[in-house]
Amino acid sequence: MKPTIKKPTIKIGLFGLGVVGQGFFKVIARATNAHAEIRRICVRDLAKPRGIDVPRNLLTDNPDDIFLDPEINLIVEVVSDPEMAWRIASTALRRGIPVVSGSKTMIAANLPELISLQRQYDTAMLYDASSCGSIPVIRNLEEYYDNDLLLEVKGILNGSSNYILSRVFDHGEDYASALSKAQRLGFAESDPTFDISGLDSLFKLVIITVHALGVYVSPKDVFTYGINAIHDSDIRYAREKGVKIKLVAQVVKVSDEEFTMFVMPEFVSPGKYIYSVDNEYNGVVIRGECYDRQFMFGKGAGGLPTASSILSDVMARLHGYRYEYKKMDYINRPAYTTDVTLRVYIRYSSTDIPGLLPLQCVHEQYLSADGNYVVADIVLGDLIKHRATLDAPDVFIANMTRFFVDRDN
Amino acid sequence: MKPTIKKPTIKIGLFGLGVVGQGFFKVIARATNAHAEIRRICVRDLAKPRGIDVPRNLLTDNPDDIFLDPEINLIVEVVSDPEMAWRIASTALRRGIPVVSGSKTMIAANLPELISLQRQYDTAMLYDASSCGSIPVIRNLEEYYDNDLLLEVKGILNGSSNYILSRVFDHGEDYASALSKAQRLGFAESDPTFDISGLDSLFKLVIITVHALGVYVSPKDVFTYGINAIHDSDIRYAREKGVKIKLVAQVVKVSDEEFTMFVMPEFVSPGKYIYSVDNEYNGVVIRGECYDRQFMFGKGAGGLPTASSILSDVMARLHGYRYEYKKMDYINRPAYTTDVTLRVYIRYSSTDIPGLLPLQCVHEQYLSADGNYVVADIVLGDLIKHRATLDAPDVFIANMTRFFVDRDN
Repeated sequence: MKPTIKKPTIKIGLFGLGVVGQGFFKVIARATNAHAEIRRICVRDLAKPRGIDVPRNLLTDNPDDIFLDPEINLIVEVVSDPEMAWRIASTALRRGIPVVSGSKTMIAANLPELISLQRQYDTAMLYDASSCGSIPVIRNLEEYYDNDLLLEVKGILNGSSNYILSRVFDHGEDYASALSKAQRLGFAESDPTFDISGLDSLFKLVIITVHALGVYVSPKDVFTYGINAIHDSDIRYAREKGVKIKLVAQVVKVSDEEFTMFVMPEFVSPGKYIYSVDNEYNGVVIRGECYDRQFMFGKGAGGLPTASSILSDVMARLHGYRYEYKKMDYINRPAYTTDVTLRVYIRYSSTDIPGLLPLQCVHEQYLSADGNYVVADIVLGDLIKHRATLDAPDVFIANMTRFFVDRDN
Repeated sequence: MKPTIKKPTIKIGLFGLGVVGQGFFKVIARATNAHAEIRRICVRDLAKPRGIDVPRNLLTDNPDDIFLDPEINLIVEVVSDPEMAWRIASTALRRGIPVVSGSKTMIAANLPELISLQRQYDTAMLYDASSCGSIPVIRNLEEYYDNDLLLEVKGILNGSSNYILSRVFDHGEDYASALSKAQRLGFAESDPTFDISGLDSLFKLVIITVHALGVYVSPKDVFTYGINAIHDSDIRYAREKGVKIKLVAQVVKVSDEEFTMFVMPEFVSPGKYIYSVDNEYNGVVIRGECYDRQFMFGKGAGGLPTASSILSDVMARLHGYRYEYKKMDYINRPAYTTDVTLRVYIRYSSTDIPGLLPLQCVHEQYLSADGNYVVADIVLGDLIKHRATLDAPDVFIANMTRFFVDRDN
């Protein structure tokens, strides 16, 4: 146990010097025990002014200065463009260079190929930063919840949309001003569609599902509905019921053989763990057969939290860690189903929701000159089939309950 | 990615068939993908009736039926007696058999030797179940927070004492009836001293500190004060201030070079994550330089939650996982100090607290015929030095704030 002196053993080629890239540059400078150093940084535009002081000789705009440098034994990829992220990650893996990435869009779209490449070229790709920033969800699902007991992963995976909803429900602001405040503070992009449409949560959920249940489901096959169309009347309805609307992503086993997954707004009551996940935070509930519920909570976005997650993956490479995707080899993996019944709230005015949707059982219906809503049961697959109806500008849908109507879970 | 058929590769010798042992027996029967099976169970008394149906031929009272069985490649040790746990764990390690253990008392007392044995005999010991039951604290500290950014681990590590305090603060019960209810429900032992004296939290904290900062501090060197002496007047004082008293264990870096640690009751205000950790739950806050605070929450005790944690460790052995204790090799590990000033509340009547303790600065003093209290600053080392004074039956001490008085943290 006496101290030993080690030299840096990880030499990093970094792609991208945006918010996360700059955060990583700062974090690694602070981590003096990390035995890792940034050897080269590839950026698109060498002339672009940066918020931090990076030695000029570290910078390059030629990817081959990283790919062909025999000293570099790890590539960290934090570029914003998914196409470019894919080119970087796939090129690195084909060259046998391990990759640490935070590009959820690219990973969610290409995970099967990325797994094949890792196996074919006997190298590793780690991407805990891609889901929930600083919360170690992927690593825990891969390593710790590595058994048949896992029943559900459910949470608030997008900080920007949660910040907006939090301003609305906890601070009484209206949606429009909450959104513009989020943009002003940098929690939401100038085009916030990616966050508030649920796409960001969806991509994280797709990655989580691979590590939770060993099954890859293509993003296009998952019902995803954001908070774009939320209206004051929906907020008022939730307030009257004493609940908050949260944008929730979930993957849930509905039997030993089947699971379902979706992203949609949900009425969350005060007793639930995710009720108190406010502002730009993320919170994930992992439910299992013998351990009941585990709750993980932390900063889900931002340069430094994401960068510290990347550092953890870099450190894991020091001792050769890789995801083994063991659950993908399970003989009896559960199958994805959309044949589950949800109880939903649907607000509408001109669109004839009761006429157009195959509602199974109507529990409440409210009609007024200002607008209508219905609380009814509907099959998830039918929501997917009638997606265009739900996208009408006068319509908003939210999940009423975490329980599936016809299942005992 | 096509399914492959694997035979069980882990054959377990189980020591102990109490609450956790029985839980483990049930959990492993349910985990059909686990590739692990219990081959033999060693108990002290073969004739003792058990709550579960275990095949008679699995049972033995001869440890050598496990140690000398060449098929057994993992020992799970969940006996309650620390002496016996040490004999089992050290014998197994010396024979090169990896061990999964949940015996916090034994581990906290013997961790340096257990680490040496693992290195000397090139084998592994895993014990995530020893700290916070189903919450994967140790593994996360070892693997994920493996860098210089970690500043603090603080939490409610004992479910029984928290259940009692929760009944008092959330349900308005008095301490004595809350304690007897905890005993009736099985949350507290018939002799609850271990839980409410803070010893259970202390042992967990000692283990956590090794994996958080790479430093072993002997339990005897850590200030540990429980809730035994709590009195209605303390509860009333906390209620008037709008806070709850929680039994909190913490290890905190006070500078780059030093850290401190202690277990004591604390006044916790509603804004804190641990404020809402109620009943028998555990909650741990991990604070770091770049990721701010992470909060992990779950069932900290009980047969099944603890057993599912043991299963995770068993599964980790399938791919050869072991703790590497990397932080112990760091060149600049922080040193343990008790030279930090805390702001504390001390209630007393006959004991002359202001006369006996070197209080640095008295912020409040209240004197009455029914009893007195003082809110003052005091050095942690002085609390240790004057421990006997604090153990007087009329005295109760609680930490007033999470900030150290003379430090900027």
